[in-house]
Amino acid sequence: MNAAIRAVVRAGISYGMEVHGIERGFSGLVGGDNSRVFDLGAVAGIIHRGGTILHTARSTEFYEKEAQEQAARRMLEAGLESLVVIGGSGSFRGAQALQELGVKVVGIPATIDHDIPGTDSSIGFDTAVNTILEAITRLRDTATSHERIFVVEVMGRESGYIALAAGIAGGAEAIIIPEIKPDLDQICRRLLEGIARKKTHSLILVAEGAAGAYDIGQKVHQKTGLETRVVVLGHIQRGGTPSAVDRLLGSRMGAAAVTLLHRGYSGLMAAQRGTEIVAVPLARSFIGGRAFPEDLYELSLVLAR
Amino acid sequence: MNAAIRAVVRAGISYGMEVHGIERGFSGLVGGDNSRVFDLGAVAGIIHRGGTILHTARSTEFYEKEAQEQAARRMLEAGLESLVVIGGSGSFRGAQALQELGVKVVGIPATIDHDIPGTDSSIGFDTAVNTILEAITRLRDTATSHERIFVVEVMGRESGYIALAAGIAGGAEAIIIPEIKPDLDQICRRLLEGIARKKTHSLILVAEGAAGAYDIGQKVHQKTGLETRVVVLGHIQRGGTPSAVDRLLGSRMGAAAVTLLHRGYSGLMAAQRGTEIVAVPLARSFIGGRAFPEDLYELSLVLAR
Amino acid sequence: MNAAIRAVVRAGISYGMEVHGIERGFSGLVGGDNSRVFDLGAVAGIIHRGGTILHTARSTEFYEKEAQEQAARRMLEAGLESLVVIGGSGSFRGAQALQELGVKVVGIPATIDHDIPGTDSSIGFDTAVNTILEAITRLRDTATSHERIFVVEVMGRESGYIALAAGIAGGAEAIIIPEIKPDLDQICRRLLEGIARKKTHSLILVAEGAAGAYDIGQKVHQKTGLETRVVVLGHIQRGGTPSAVDRLLGSRMGAAAVTLLHRGYSGLMAAQRGTEIVAVPLARSFIGGRAFPEDLYELSLVLAR
Amino acid sequence: MNAAIRAVVRAGISYGMEVHGIERGFSGLVGGDNSRVFDLGAVAGIIHRGGTILHTARSTEFYEKEAQEQAARRMLEAGLESLVVIGGSGSFRGAQALQELGVKVVGIPATIDHDIPGTDSSIGFDTAVNTILEAITRLRDTATSHERIFVVEVMGRESGYIALAAGIAGGAEAIIIPEIKPDLDQICRRLLEGIARKKTHSLILVAEGAAGAYDIGQKVHQKTGLETRVVVLGHIQRGGTPSAVDRLLGSRMGAAAVTLLHRGYSGLMAAQRGTEIVAVPLARSFIGGRAFPEDLYELSLVLAR
Repeated sequence: MNAAIRAVVRAGISYGMEVHGIERGFSGLVGGDNSRVFDLGAVAGIIHRGGTILHTARSTEFYEKEAQEQAARRMLEAGLESLVVIGGSGSFRGAQALQELGVKVVGIPATIDHDIPGTDSSIGFDTAVNTILEAITRLRDTATSHERIFVVEVMGRESGYIALAAGIAGGAEAIIIPEIKPDLDQICRRLLEGIARKKTHSLILVAEGAAGAYDIGQKVHQKTGLETRVVVLGHIQRGGTPSAVDRLLGSRMGAAAVTLLHRGYSGLMAAQRGTEIVAVPLARSFIGGRAFPEDLYELSLVLAR
Repeated sequence: MNAAIRAVVRAGISYGMEVHGIERGFSGLVGGDNSRVFDLGAVAGIIHRGGTILHTARSTEFYEKEAQEQAARRMLEAGLESLVVIGGSGSFRGAQALQELGVKVVGIPATIDHDIPGTDSSIGFDTAVNTILEAITRLRDTATSHERIFVVEVMGRESGYIALAAGIAGGAEAIIIPEIKPDLDQICRRLLEGIARKKTHSLILVAEGAAGAYDIGQKVHQKTGLETRVVVLGHIQRGGTPSAVDRLLGSRMGAAAVTLLHRGYSGLMAAQRGTEIVAVPLARSFIGGRAFPEDLYELSLVLAR
Repeated sequence: MNAAIRAVVRAGISYGMEVHGIERGFSGLVGGDNSRVFDLGAVAGIIHRGGTILHTARSTEFYEKEAQEQAARRMLEAGLESLVVIGGSGSFRGAQALQELGVKVVGIPATIDHDIPGTDSSIGFDTAVNTILEAITRLRDTATSHERIFVVEVMGRESGYIALAAGIAGGAEAIIIPEIKPDLDQICRRLLEGIARKKTHSLILVAEGAAGAYDIGQKVHQKTGLETRVVVLGHIQRGGTPSAVDRLLGSRMGAAAVTLLHRGYSGLMAAQRGTEIVAVPLARSFIGGRAFPEDLYELSLVLAR
Repeated sequence: MNAAIRAVVRAGISYGMEVHGIERGFSGLVGGDNSRVFDLGAVAGIIHRGGTILHTARSTEFYEKEAQEQAARRMLEAGLESLVVIGGSGSFRGAQALQELGVKVVGIPATIDHDIPGTDSSIGFDTAVNTILEAITRLRDTATSHERIFVVEVMGRESGYIALAAGIAGGAEAIIIPEIKPDLDQICRRLLEGIARKKTHSLILVAEGAAGAYDIGQKVHQKTGLETRVVVLGHIQRGGTPSAVDRLLGSRMGAAAVTLLHRGYSGLMAAQRGTEIVAVPLARSFIGGRAFPEDLYELSLVLAR
């Protein structure tokens, strides 16, 4: 996210704007003194840092009309005309409300879950997949002479995209996602086939929204008699040095968002489509769902052996 | 590349094909005994390894008609009907010649330089950019109290794409690429402005095809009086654990290439377009050039301060 | 461990020995056909790989007299006179038994837990600590605006050494180890003091043998009202590219073990003392305990703020 | 180094001292306003950062009596009684001069070259070796089917210690160090033997003080006819996330240095001896040399095949 913040600041300054950084997200807009002018130096040396220099805050109060009105009033009083919101569908819903109250808004999609409709990708996803792959590589190294199944729980409450991407790239023997009911009998049959082919270990990736990893581990053990080991990656998947893709995406989207505001647009999201950054209506991000990546799922079945 | 090899083998087997691995590229096709049957296990445990299990060989002999005919003859005698070629424009030119001699061919674009027309991306590029970013992060850490300019030479003989991507993602203060004549006076003016803003170090990224890094270092020192340090990354940019993007791309392209052959197609390249893997004529990869990424270059000027 | 295996093979060959690799540890000795001659090439390209090319197997049968006799008989019948055992106290106990049955044995200490008496360090420990540090860095990046406590469970069933080393090097705010009963009230007081000084997150490292991380997380939450997040690192701590220290240690110990055998010694362990590799009686590794690193514990109390 | 700074500050505060951070090393002492009080928070979140938050500055002026007197005067005027110097032999020589002028001094050895007499290790060495190993792993991955020799130049102007450590841990086929005149004919014979055993690539590590890597590359090519590729690692070896060993060492030495000052000692260096941190006379660090690690050199000859 820091790459996006840096690009917003620098592109803004190149247009002659005064750019303020607001800490703690929407909560920071609503109350307290969380805004300060960002100059070129304020965003120096941050592009390779994980996390965000603005901190984040999950704020449920923002779904309330009153808080929204207070935020818009405070912004306009402080002379802040436009807002770049970096976040997911929930944040963009809040941004949309602010727009209706007179603030110009543009969104930048940033969510590890890769579940924002309207954009090919969002900031944070690639870094998280790379982090999961590192963990998987470590697990594979601990090969033993007796057969063992690792069950690894990764993020993805409603979308199995991250599990599919990490599972294919990590060579998982099975991937369990929320969108498809898993056929545990078939999975276990395949695991036993692998062992018959002298595999010493196999890997089942489970999206957290699909099933409990411990539950899967137990069932697989019961059905196959194989030793299972469960690893819940949890918060380790967040943070970490951002990947090249995420830094480039953040830089491009940050600059594009400011350019849109500079040209007078509002209510848009800077979105990736192929190799381009395009503008789509902000509402596109929370109305309608994202298509299930059927092709990745099919591919996973072919490769997972 | 190993992800692509693995996907070719596993997708091939899932279609009931017998898949052979040929070592040492075209040289391996022309002479010697470099082919062996690959089963599921032959490509197990390779997806996270850098390099390629098939080894590579740059072979100039393949531009000769005679060698091409020998390769085609040997393949058909051995009952090998189809060929998946993983490489760049040069390799695809050779593949095209083989097709005209009766071998079915499909190409998978793999080149760090990101310079193959017809596809949004190619295998190896993302890993290389991430490697460059690691090196840049290390250099930035060695901050000193007196001002210092690092000049880092990266790959890119004819294309500045890799330098632009790594330069933007790495926060370079200037990026010098083959496509645009550099304005060293302007670059030096910016470096001095940065120092006036208390920057202790700056970074100039130079694509190898644009200028010699040592030459740039010397000129910048002469024009600014600043201490310059030159680093030529060279072969370190190749190899290394493949990134998530490259592993997923290799897996998808490998499976797509085999599916194309299975359906009877030939003379195609598995190409990325947006989020999809599509088929484009193999000739598309070596006829006509790749558009210069003007938008990235403009972005680099805005962000590099 | 691969560095040690490589050094054993190459040092052995340099002395004119024939070196055999035995897979699956003691189980491999007792039954089946798990031994083959290792030449120089057999250990090429392995020094940077995690895990072990010989696989491991935990074998309880080896504590039985009968299995020991069978292993010794099989070794002597096969002309294998000497054995290098890479492992921990349990393995060395087995090795000692073999020695009494006529096989020459030398041990190389390798255990992540850093709990083998008689040697300053053992192979695997440094790699594991570095892995834990990477995970900690990722967690710290996910800083939020509301205060949060991470509770991270690391290895160490009886020894808190790994938790102390990783905790000090990772800047943990509290470290809970099996050797010292934790004063949760004091820990919570310190956490609250940190938050009063504007800390947004704190880290408690828990050795698995000291307490359950979930239990600690719950208690800290009850006592402080702070949000806690629990991460159990588990198997991720094993495996991974070995660190420089571990590769150098493995290389030195491997060569030293073979030199000891070559000179006719037996019943020894290659141990690190300061910058030297020395020989100590194998029994030293399982008789008597390892001193508790009081100084590290005291240091952790000074630094953890 | 940041781990040491952090430990100095926190240990100092635990003793009730007021701790000041001085930027830009000795230059900072001599002139300008480079000192400020460091509280607990000033060193929060730095333990995992490369480089040093105090910046460094090589200052030749400090060898002059006048500058030394000015520094001592300024310190005593400002009420700064004691100084912790983090650096190498040159810095400690300066520190010794300050002591004679009435300032209490304790040194902490920090130099990548591992060439400070009187201590088993110094801060920065382990991180640098790990960085070199990463680069070597990348080079090895770029294996090709035709034979290739990589010549990699690493740090070490007068000491080959870093080259030996990285060469053994990285499995180099030859290591060229300043202390031993290389026998290029023997090295080339070994390289050709390796190739006869089907090696596709070999690695020669050259300490910068021993020979020019380009010169070695050319000579090896002439003698063997093999393709050689030269990589000069240069500044990439500095910086980077500090390793576990360096963070722990820095933490221990930092705290020990303050404890020594607190107890009234001066003119000492916090040194590592085995697993202990001990105090040795500061002069020990610049009088007499460090013994050449003969055992590592011998080991490298046994393993490098």
